[in-house]
Amino acid sequence: MIEVLRLSHRLPRDCRISTHCALTARAFGATKIFYSGQKDKELEESVDKITKAFGGPFEIEYTKEPFKIAKEKKQKGFTIIHLTMYGLEFEKEIQNIKSKNIFLIIGGAKVESEYYQLADYNISVSSQPISEVSALGIILYKMNGIKNKFDNKKLEVIPQQKGKLLKEHK
Amino acid sequence: MIEVLRLSHRLPRDCRISTHCALTARAFGATKIFYSGQKDKELEESVDKITKAFGGPFEIEYTKEPFKIAKEKKQKGFTIIHLTMYGLEFEKEIQNIKSKNIFLIIGGAKVESEYYQLADYNISVSSQPISEVSALGIILYKMNGIKNKFDNKKLEVIPQQKGKLLKEHK
Repeated sequence: MIEVLRLSHRLPRDCRISTHCALTARAFGATKIFYSGQKDKELEESVDKITKAFGGPFEIEYTKEPFKIAKEKKQKGFTIIHLTMYGLEFEKEIQNIKSKNIFLIIGGAKVESEYYQLADYNISVSSQPISEVSALGIILYKMNGIKNKFDNKKLEVIPQQKGKLLKEHK
Repeated sequence: MIEVLRLSHRLPRDCRISTHCALTARAFGATKIFYSGQKDKELEESVDKITKAFGGPFEIEYTKEPFKIAKEKKQKGFTIIHLTMYGLEFEKEIQNIKSKNIFLIIGGAKVESEYYQLADYNISVSSQPISEVSALGIILYKMNGIKNKFDNKKLEVIPQQKGKLLKEHK
């Protein structure tokens, strides 16, 4: 089980970035994203709409107590991975991760040091300033590859050489 | 050589998404990103600032004629890859790409069909709605792995288990 925590969502600045984080999480096998900061109904609706159309399971939940949730996940046996530009190289580190239950934390303008302390792994994808969206996508892809099965989907992309084809499921 | 074209940049909606595309492109080995749509000085400054600090080569250039640029790149022998949710599965397709010169096109709200026609490869990362940022990151990572050498950098992240360390180069 993979869950994600997106810290310090800010409006309007982060609206699309957080949406892209959630969609990337969903597509690469996470089943839930929590987010903290400012509650954002539009974000939640965008993500739920995609899940309803293209399948799940995936949910998005707002939290006012992100650190408490992270601590609870750790107590429940999740391996806590904090994605930060400053962390250790992900290619080496993820070889050591044996747990199937992963709680992935992504910033957030400034991440408090308590998250660095709580995390089992502070991990960087590239040690360069990139994006929480691409960092999340690359680490999930590296860990899980492509996810092929989505439940209760109404729409499915049928890959095309040129053009677009959406199959409707009833 | 890898270059990227980001289509139809819209203000203020795409400001951060396009910045994240550019930074992801830079970190994973592209040397240039073109963008079309609305000219955005803040986007250019953000990207140039990161390149000055963390090294290059990398540049960002606005264009009013994105399709003309794509056509010119094709004439010069670049392999044109258009990233689209509707395309063929990237893991299979990139095995066929032998060229070292890649021109990667990313949308854009609605991408005109001429790009689908021009592209040597219309490729999807996951066949799910994700994000141009994560799609770009995953395909570049899959093709090139991690880039370790950046020229003329002033700052360098020294990976840490917990905490942050930036080394200054003079």
